[in-house]
Amino acid sequence: LANQQIDQFRAEYLELHPYDQAAVFEEQPEEVRKQIYSYLSPEETAEIMENVDQENADEYFTEMYSRYAAQVLAEMSADDAVDILKEMDKNKVASFITIMEKEAADEIKHLLHYEDKTAGSIMTTEFVSVSAADTVREAMLHLRAEAPDAETIYYTYVVDIDKKLVGVISLRNLIIAEKDWLISEVMSDRIVSVAVGDDQEHAAQMMRDYDFLALPVVDFQDHILGIITVDDILDVMEEEADEDYSRLAGVSDTEKGEDSAFVSARKRLPWLVALLFLGMITASLISRFESTLSQVAILASFIPLIGGMGGNTGTQALAVAVRGMATGDIAKRGKMRMVLREGLTGMMTGLSCGIVITIVVAIWQNNVYLGLLVGLSIFATLIIATLAGAIIPLLMHKMKIDPAIASGPFITTINDIISILIYFGLATAFMGLITQ
Amino acid sequence: LANQQIDQFRAEYLELHPYDQAAVFEEQPEEVRKQIYSYLSPEETAEIMENVDQENADEYFTEMYSRYAAQVLAEMSADDAVDILKEMDKNKVASFITIMEKEAADEIKHLLHYEDKTAGSIMTTEFVSVSAADTVREAMLHLRAEAPDAETIYYTYVVDIDKKLVGVISLRNLIIAEKDWLISEVMSDRIVSVAVGDDQEHAAQMMRDYDFLALPVVDFQDHILGIITVDDILDVMEEEADEDYSRLAGVSDTEKGEDSAFVSARKRLPWLVALLFLGMITASLISRFESTLSQVAILASFIPLIGGMGGNTGTQALAVAVRGMATGDIAKRGKMRMVLREGLTGMMTGLSCGIVITIVVAIWQNNVYLGLLVGLSIFATLIIATLAGAIIPLLMHKMKIDPAIASGPFITTINDIISILIYFGLATAFMGLITQ
Repeated sequence: LANQQIDQFRAEYLELHPYDQAAVFEEQPEEVRKQIYSYLSPEETAEIMENVDQENADEYFTEMYSRYAAQVLAEMSADDAVDILKEMDKNKVASFITIMEKEAADEIKHLLHYEDKTAGSIMTTEFVSVSAADTVREAMLHLRAEAPDAETIYYTYVVDIDKKLVGVISLRNLIIAEKDWLISEVMSDRIVSVAVGDDQEHAAQMMRDYDFLALPVVDFQDHILGIITVDDILDVMEEEADEDYSRLAGVSDTEKGEDSAFVSARKRLPWLVALLFLGMITASLISRFESTLSQVAILASFIPLIGGMGGNTGTQALAVAVRGMATGDIAKRGKMRMVLREGLTGMMTGLSCGIVITIVVAIWQNNVYLGLLVGLSIFATLIIATLAGAIIPLLMHKMKIDPAIASGPFITTINDIISILIYFGLATAFMGLITQ
Repeated sequence: LANQQIDQFRAEYLELHPYDQAAVFEEQPEEVRKQIYSYLSPEETAEIMENVDQENADEYFTEMYSRYAAQVLAEMSADDAVDILKEMDKNKVASFITIMEKEAADEIKHLLHYEDKTAGSIMTTEFVSVSAADTVREAMLHLRAEAPDAETIYYTYVVDIDKKLVGVISLRNLIIAEKDWLISEVMSDRIVSVAVGDDQEHAAQMMRDYDFLALPVVDFQDHILGIITVDDILDVMEEEADEDYSRLAGVSDTEKGEDSAFVSARKRLPWLVALLFLGMITASLISRFESTLSQVAILASFIPLIGGMGGNTGTQALAVAVRGMATGDIAKRGKMRMVLREGLTGMMTGLSCGIVITIVVAIWQNNVYLGLLVGLSIFATLIIATLAGAIIPLLMHKMKIDPAIASGPFITTINDIISILIYFGLATAFMGLITQ
């Protein structure tokens, strides 16, 4: 391309919003992407890389010259750079960090330490802080100098001589304050912060409750380590919601719409095979009642109905329990109260459905005892299934397992087994009445 | 309480963050709440009301004196006030609006018009706008005057003489600009906006993609009507995630952890009764195969296994489809491609599970034909169930029904019926082989 064309490309392309630049960039084949790198400065490419799909970023950095790639990473928001580096091969990460300028390298090495899904892993260290002893004028000067690199300039954090976080001041208040006041006089000391090891979901919750645009992250001695900005929280919320939803359906949360059928099948199969073997337990249980069944074949008709109702109520209770734990609602109200409530709910839904089905079956099959058998089974199944749906995630939580793993299919299969035992147990016990 | 005590209460209570003020407030009984109103100005109470649970707000406003309640509503962010008013009895709303000062009343009446869950329903009209012909100095003066009432001062929107949105300028850029430049020279004309009738989920998507703190809302002629701020988007995302999750589990999305067991049962029952009747269809289908069953009672053992696998794969496909539509992924890649992919995935999972179960059953029951029957049924069920899970939400989307309504239990029950028909159809056809 002639120089003139390069200028024209730059003029048009850089006019786009970075998100749109990234969208255009991602549609290009490798040769065109390589041309784009050669036309843009590391700073300009960094803005694109902050907006591309993280899954693909590894590929892009590999096709850049290493020195250029390191410069791009150094120019990116440290938290975004770290997100990308975490997906890369460790040797590649080390080589990029070695040729990077020291300041950026140190920051990235520091952030790479934090465990995934903690507040530390989503924070950035590019925040503005001032001393409580500064004047508003000094703070404004400092803020102006830091502005180009800072993730947000809308909050300035105030630290004491030990670098402990003691206050916060919004740009709004900084602007309206008199220039020679002390920061300690105009700051708010009503600080809300998260600990660096806290779950990212906790940070999202705080941000949502308090309507902040940024949240300081502190260590156990209240030293400020970084900030989490609201744009990262939007991504966390999307990610967590996706995860919960996928798990309820028994899909690996790493499954993407863009996966090939083969990749999808490979991701779903472990679940399905596990459930297949759980299903074999149900099958072998029923096979023990073969003689009961050959006497009264009609009993088989109600197997899917009873199992299905158990599965459905269990999933309902599970969903309420998992969401309740995610929102902190259950912690507030107490677990026992929640279990009690679910038990009562199961009794009421069980009673209603049991009565309806007793009447329907009694009329359809012209057999009151068969109706009572199915109705009684539904009643018992609904109570137990509802309780299981509520208690299993609570137990998992207590055992430090993420309760969202107790997916719908898992609970459904457990409840299938329980309901079959109830149904055939009752049927065998009251065989005489049914066949009379 | 003596005056001194009131002062002390005010000093301590107002020192808290509004979110914490609200939390304390909500724990008090009615008499204490009424005392709190009498100690606080309408502006102070407004801050609390912006942070209380919207479900309870109706009660609080009813226990205030009407004139005080109207003042509190007028002092609140217009979008928050409208959210509360939408939950109230229409007569009560009218009476509050009548005694409210005109400017606030007009704004609220205007916002009350927008349909639920649209961009219009979550926007606020309290934004700062300037003319493109203003100087930076004039804009700063205007911004400072508007600041106390504005929802955000971090973006100023630029309009032309027809009030059309032509640009935006961030506070960051306003501060560093020369004071006598024209706004039209320093603003960005790269505007991203949403239409007032757009779905709130669309606004959330844009906010997340572009990392904005606020998003302008325009009518069909590009006149700016309001802005949506990121704190409201956090609530929208939580709400939408809750809704999708709850529906997948077949729980009404209005169910809350704080509901009593009776209320919960009443909310879950419609689903359960509907599924009970769908289950009766399955039962009556199986009853037609009563003679097949009484010949080979062991067939009944595999009913839950086959139905369960159909339900599980259907729910997996459903979850991927619903999330894919929510994130816009499917729109981008095409529906046919997605259906094709799911069909292939179903074939691969069906083939794998079918082979496994054929071998297991053939050995367990020492009957190759029975193994083949179960394996073949699983194979066919998994293909059809996966396709059903993908196609049903797509069809619902086409028919303008929210596909998230196609909840897990619904898909599970449909797939139960399909799988039973396949299984008993094959069993009846090959009866001779199995019983030999």
